[in-house]
Amino acid sequence: MSLPPPAEPSGAEPLSDGPLGEFERIRRFFKPLAAAFAGSLGLANDAAVFGVPDGMELVVTSDAMVAGIHFFADDDPEDVAAKLLRVNLSDLAAMGAAPLAYTLVTAFPAAVDDAWIARFSAGLAADQEHFGIGLAGGDSVRTSGPITLSVTAFGLVPKGQALPRSGARPGDTVFVTGTIGDAALGLQVALGTLGLADPADAIPLLARLRRPDPRTGVGIGLRGLAHACIDVSDGLVADLAHICRESACAAVLEADAVPFSGAARAAIGAARAAIGGDAGLLETALTGGDDYELLFTAAPESRVTLDRLAAECGVPITAIGRMEMGPPGRVEVRRGDGSALALQRTGWRHF
Amino acid sequence: MSLPPPAEPSGAEPLSDGPLGEFERIRRFFKPLAAAFAGSLGLANDAAVFGVPDGMELVVTSDAMVAGIHFFADDDPEDVAAKLLRVNLSDLAAMGAAPLAYTLVTAFPAAVDDAWIARFSAGLAADQEHFGIGLAGGDSVRTSGPITLSVTAFGLVPKGQALPRSGARPGDTVFVTGTIGDAALGLQVALGTLGLADPADAIPLLARLRRPDPRTGVGIGLRGLAHACIDVSDGLVADLAHICRESACAAVLEADAVPFSGAARAAIGAARAAIGGDAGLLETALTGGDDYELLFTAAPESRVTLDRLAAECGVPITAIGRMEMGPPGRVEVRRGDGSALALQRTGWRHF
Repeated sequence: MSLPPPAEPSGAEPLSDGPLGEFERIRRFFKPLAAAFAGSLGLANDAAVFGVPDGMELVVTSDAMVAGIHFFADDDPEDVAAKLLRVNLSDLAAMGAAPLAYTLVTAFPAAVDDAWIARFSAGLAADQEHFGIGLAGGDSVRTSGPITLSVTAFGLVPKGQALPRSGARPGDTVFVTGTIGDAALGLQVALGTLGLADPADAIPLLARLRRPDPRTGVGIGLRGLAHACIDVSDGLVADLAHICRESACAAVLEADAVPFSGAARAAIGAARAAIGGDAGLLETALTGGDDYELLFTAAPESRVTLDRLAAECGVPITAIGRMEMGPPGRVEVRRGDGSALALQRTGWRHF
Repeated sequence: MSLPPPAEPSGAEPLSDGPLGEFERIRRFFKPLAAAFAGSLGLANDAAVFGVPDGMELVVTSDAMVAGIHFFADDDPEDVAAKLLRVNLSDLAAMGAAPLAYTLVTAFPAAVDDAWIARFSAGLAADQEHFGIGLAGGDSVRTSGPITLSVTAFGLVPKGQALPRSGARPGDTVFVTGTIGDAALGLQVALGTLGLADPADAIPLLARLRRPDPRTGVGIGLRGLAHACIDVSDGLVADLAHICRESACAAVLEADAVPFSGAARAAIGAARAAIGGDAGLLETALTGGDDYELLFTAAPESRVTLDRLAAECGVPITAIGRMEMGPPGRVEVRRGDGSALALQRTGWRHF
């Protein structure tokens, strides 16, 4: 039951003309997505049913995205779908869980047409297949506000082997997968505030902003190996601080060891050459969030095993610092010459 | 990472003055709710971890509520919290599942102050304790639109014993718990469109609108007994039609057998006395949704067992019709004299 139309511009949903009603939208666009997960019961019940194999635990995470806040209203709906799923799968990866299924809650304003939803569901379908997951259930409601989407994602991990944030120890090496800062620089590209020496560099930066790569394989490989793990969503420094707080220790981050992509290196280098500084781009890269790489700590002697894991997964794993005794949550960022890099801010949202 | 402030009126969150930031809000208002569910890991990780006991399955459901659509913007935040949890728990009850935990996704506009959120979380805390569940995790984001809330609720059921919608058979009796129509009449009270002979009748009607009672105990008791079960959210007739469609049969609903509360009976009776008809109130009650009673089918000889279950749970269970061979999805509503009751609409949203 909804409140009556006067409270809501879109009014009652028409029976036949104009956009499809909620029921028909679910039938046409979302029900096919549920075929890939038997526990969805074809979306024909009040709820989904998850059997969890003996010896396994279910890992559960929720992430939401709002148009105008987490994505641009004119972003490609397939990219929006991909990002929505992938930020959740990244949380599963950070726990060492293998993806299983997801539930989806959508709130669409009247201005969103069936074509948008068709492309959105096509994006979900493509990523479902890519990651081997299926839609388990959800809800679809109207809103007078912007498009609001949330996913609850489910993964499996052997009992007791979920990766914590709290197990880092002084002496651990800090590692990170892939490259850092591309999404934050990609956001500047999207906003038109970042000049690039080579315009072609815009493509990989925007791709990282719009379609993060959850590090599922690495996360699974880190079971029993990483002492603490998190995915980089708030920013490298902020997320390392999360590990430090939960593990009651401090960390030193070597700025010059942080892996940057060619495009990110070019952008930072060009700014340095032009104005003798890096125009804050280094800081943007270190603190800008949305990387969805895995940041973790492990014993220094795990290096060989990690190199093998990196090769197997085709994802670089780079040592970027170390855990220390110190005030819980403190992260010192150092240049190659040992000098401290003072940051204006440490993360996008949480500080 | 969020898009920068220009796209969003509320802008960056202040560090100290004004409303609390997202991080501090989570710490103050939501983290305490997670203490009741160990798998939440204190909201300190990327995800929650659910151990599912051997022989059990996890039942998962999601429901969303948007201010101005599913509740009034000036509703008591504690009522909003209660309804949000209870509509989800009602879905679990309809599957025969025992409630375990929930995740929460909130999107708050800048106009929502900490006092609102404090009362909202107090409402969650009270209902958590009442229903024996805890907060497992979630997400909290900003929105330029109305308050948007969604819950994914988790329950446990013995393997293979979740109640389906699809098992109804011709010859089954149709039963319903509690009383029907109070919430729909309560909505008319809230809108000021329903005159009551006794103004005191507004209280129970509004209470049913704002704080539904999920029929958890009855749902658990129906395991192995009900052939098909659903909770009444779209309206009695529409939800019976859902069972009929999923079970590939038809149903006859005896309108005079449908249980009404004293307040509902008084409202319908007063309308009849005043204008010689019931002013559509009978139809409103039968089709109006938001009852959150359990509607189910069972063999006629289950009656004695159901009477005992009703007594144990303190919830009436009433026979209101029967399943028949017939076009899948067809529901005939009959008066006591056998005449058909023609309905203008069969449910609020889905038809």
